[in-house]
Amino acid sequence: MRIAVLGTGTVGETIASKLVTLGQEVRLGSRSPNNEKAAAWAKRLGQGASQGTFADAAGFGEIIFNCTLGTAVLEVLNAAGRDRLSGKILIDVTNPLEFRKGQPPTLFVSNDDSLGERIQRAFPDVRVVKALNTINCEVMVDPARVPGEHAVFLAGNDPAAKEEVSTILRSWFGWNQVIDLGDISAARATEGYLLLWLRMMQVLGTSDFNVRVVKGN
Amino acid sequence: MRIAVLGTGTVGETIASKLVTLGQEVRLGSRSPNNEKAAAWAKRLGQGASQGTFADAAGFGEIIFNCTLGTAVLEVLNAAGRDRLSGKILIDVTNPLEFRKGQPPTLFVSNDDSLGERIQRAFPDVRVVKALNTINCEVMVDPARVPGEHAVFLAGNDPAAKEEVSTILRSWFGWNQVIDLGDISAARATEGYLLLWLRMMQVLGTSDFNVRVVKGN
Repeated sequence: MRIAVLGTGTVGETIASKLVTLGQEVRLGSRSPNNEKAAAWAKRLGQGASQGTFADAAGFGEIIFNCTLGTAVLEVLNAAGRDRLSGKILIDVTNPLEFRKGQPPTLFVSNDDSLGERIQRAFPDVRVVKALNTINCEVMVDPARVPGEHAVFLAGNDPAAKEEVSTILRSWFGWNQVIDLGDISAARATEGYLLLWLRMMQVLGTSDFNVRVVKGN
Repeated sequence: MRIAVLGTGTVGETIASKLVTLGQEVRLGSRSPNNEKAAAWAKRLGQGASQGTFADAAGFGEIIFNCTLGTAVLEVLNAAGRDRLSGKILIDVTNPLEFRKGQPPTLFVSNDDSLGERIQRAFPDVRVVKALNTINCEVMVDPARVPGEHAVFLAGNDPAAKEEVSTILRSWFGWNQVIDLGDISAARATEGYLLLWLRMMQVLGTSDFNVRVVKGN
């Protein structure tokens, strides 16, 4: 499958690399056609790996992983281009982290709105699925780093899109507890969880952790 | 031990009843000295159970469980009385749920503040420990309803108070994964988690669930 990964940060690169090793064709998108980091990544990964602008990547991909900074999301998707995104599944991995107001970070959208909803409102034709934003990127693509069953959450308005994303998470990445929380407004819940994730990361002293949802009998 | 439970809702009554069955002396506090529900509860539970106003209960208890509605917290604690609360451990179980703006509920304080912090600011002499607010009340007092290890979170400024609360949670209620998230500002994290809890409750179809925190090797 041809896949676009928007964003050359740690999250984007980690997901893009995993997808290439799985035999997918991956185009890493950034602001510039000559991003040094993206070019080095494509050279290092070799076959299946290419890079270009956000628009290049979005035009190439059948599915889009959105791994940009939360603060840049709409600007990046506008640069990618409405027509190149239309009708496609966009897996939104972003979080609305506000680092400029001191530690611990707060969220610049929360409670009664979310980045997932903002994207869906701005791009009504895009099949937005919020996913993977509650886990460190190394665990995203290799859940076995954390023992046993543990959870990844989905939120989105398109059941078929969520089904496809669930298959990608289970079959490609190895996830074993995929929980569909409902429509895209449930992105409020998983983005809001970041505050708890950050505290846990501090006290556990590692980002190699996750939660397992356990039900009563 | 003499314990005050403020609030005669399901949470308050469930915790108060459990404490009585554990052999503690419990006074359930409400607005009025003649609350019918509280009187019926005290009669039903018998030895060890009494009821009275918020002030009666706060004066009686060596430890306070705060189980009022989030919207009423400061009003209730003012009614309980600053001098009767001073120096005591207050286990704050409340959540800032806003039900008046439709479904799903939002939070009326979140992200950069919390009910736990509001209480601690308003009552600097009280040893506030945020705890148990991330779990349904039946699971709070009987974690074995959910199989295996699963988590309850603590937040508070007083390490000795958190240690005492941890002992209560482990020895009295049977909790096996007690996670200290840090100072009272971590209440933002556990109160914010309610948005995720509510979505999970909907899709799991039960409130008998919780999360287990799992660490990588």
